[in-house]
Amino acid sequence: MDIAERVLNGDRRAVARLITMVENNHPEVRELMRELYPHTGKAHVIGITGAPGSGKSSLVNKMTGEYRKRGKSVGVIAVDPTSPFTGGALLGDRIRMQSHATDKEVFIRSMGTRGSLGGLSRATSDAITILDASGKDVIIVETVGAGQSEVDIVNSSHTPIVVLVPGMGDEIQAIKAGILEIGTIFVVNKADREGVERVLVDLEMMIDLAGYGEDEWVPPILQTVAVRNEGIKELVDTIEEHMKYLASTGGLDKRIRDRVRAGLKDWIREEGVHIVLNNLKEAGEYEPLIDKMVKREVDPHTAAVDAIKRVRNR
Amino acid sequence: MDIAERVLNGDRRAVARLITMVENNHPEVRELMRELYPHTGKAHVIGITGAPGSGKSSLVNKMTGEYRKRGKSVGVIAVDPTSPFTGGALLGDRIRMQSHATDKEVFIRSMGTRGSLGGLSRATSDAITILDASGKDVIIVETVGAGQSEVDIVNSSHTPIVVLVPGMGDEIQAIKAGILEIGTIFVVNKADREGVERVLVDLEMMIDLAGYGEDEWVPPILQTVAVRNEGIKELVDTIEEHMKYLASTGGLDKRIRDRVRAGLKDWIREEGVHIVLNNLKEAGEYEPLIDKMVKREVDPHTAAVDAIKRVRNR
Repeated sequence: MDIAERVLNGDRRAVARLITMVENNHPEVRELMRELYPHTGKAHVIGITGAPGSGKSSLVNKMTGEYRKRGKSVGVIAVDPTSPFTGGALLGDRIRMQSHATDKEVFIRSMGTRGSLGGLSRATSDAITILDASGKDVIIVETVGAGQSEVDIVNSSHTPIVVLVPGMGDEIQAIKAGILEIGTIFVVNKADREGVERVLVDLEMMIDLAGYGEDEWVPPILQTVAVRNEGIKELVDTIEEHMKYLASTGGLDKRIRDRVRAGLKDWIREEGVHIVLNNLKEAGEYEPLIDKMVKREVDPHTAAVDAIKRVRNR
Repeated sequence: MDIAERVLNGDRRAVARLITMVENNHPEVRELMRELYPHTGKAHVIGITGAPGSGKSSLVNKMTGEYRKRGKSVGVIAVDPTSPFTGGALLGDRIRMQSHATDKEVFIRSMGTRGSLGGLSRATSDAITILDASGKDVIIVETVGAGQSEVDIVNSSHTPIVVLVPGMGDEIQAIKAGILEIGTIFVVNKADREGVERVLVDLEMMIDLAGYGEDEWVPPILQTVAVRNEGIKELVDTIEEHMKYLASTGGLDKRIRDRVRAGLKDWIREEGVHIVLNNLKEAGEYEPLIDKMVKREVDPHTAAVDAIKRVRNR
């Protein structure tokens, strides 16, 4: 049985190994992903983002527990682009692993930034496909939201959630536009802390001002204290409501199409650059072009457009 | 006089406006950048990265002061990919602006994540070109190092600097490889804090183990207390030494070539995706392809490679 078949049978080791192959850009990965792709599209993908220190790891941990109580299997992907500096994901991972280590219906994996620009977004997308194919009912993707590619990851989930904490009041004024573009559910975690009223009022005002239409999903604001498991049941209820809303309004189809569009774009970027550079190299034109650019005889934009056109005209 | 000519004359408002045009992807930008490009390559570009909270803003502020004392004009670009959540860059910017607001030889600008994947790295590269063309002697690019694209930005400077703080001892064990790839100078900021010995020892051991050759630049480790201006003079001296080392060994040419290569790649990615998608759309094949992908009849990688090949064969 090849590794793709074993993934389809829900074999945990095969899942782990294939994700590692994805991260390492193993040459057989594309063929294996092609085998899995027709068997995907069944999982409910939840995206969670928020500032460092907002308690996302604990929240995801408790949500996992709640979904398990409801009989759903869960895959967790913790995306940490900051890991070369903070080591944060590693620590969060260890905490999570302890809670669900013996549960075969939970699969947890962190992914850091290795490889090229855009590589993390593609690798995460592949990891979602793998967990989906392995039969996980719910896939939670957690990121620190530290860059456009991470925002894209969260935005391409079915249910993107933004986590805030008390004490961010002043900042919210400045970030309005950014977080409204993302969140379909807002969670104020650590809601037992001072300043919670201020965050709630600011969020409510922000949502009011956005002027949602009658048939639109108005992002609900929930309060949680993840470490004490408070508000988690309500959060999962709300996520399920959002999924029903999406399914009943055709919004689900739109989100699926958006995700497919983003995936296509990522791959055109990645493969396009390979094809164009390889063409330049095969023609012996690559180093001479770099020489010209170093001498400032041609600017990088002009050089790139020319290189793409030459590939097309060959 | 067009805006490019005004930039070449060092007009601050023109510089600010052109950077805004870059951020907004204004249609005239490419032509203007082409005008500037032959007049660049003179500035010394310094990259600074480190975890949030390591005091990078203060450090850059004091370095700017030191360079001004030495009669050099300074441009600062603060790249903050996390800004939709933390608002950090804005705050740091305000602090910096106050110190150098009346100095015409200092230009400070922050750039956040707006636009497409890879857009930030391109926009930063353009901003460096603009400041270089406007005659700034030194350009300091600061990022929180929160993603591959930010690492690329720092790595493509002449002198990449990694900032650490005491209390990170345990993490350094886990991040060895990552930071050694980047730093040519290591700065331990907030060096008056407890735990400084531990960070210094860990860094020294890490550099020892890397086994640098006799003629190689061995990354020096410096201590600073930026808020009290301690160690800043020594840091700037060391940066100047590194630049002399680069110039005398041919390392400078290599770094310049590397930066040019990275710029070409960025633009091939960006323009490639436009060209391929436009071709699909013009042929009326885009939406049908998305349909097939949504039905899981074709996987995104296969679809992307086919789309690129079809462009080439037309």
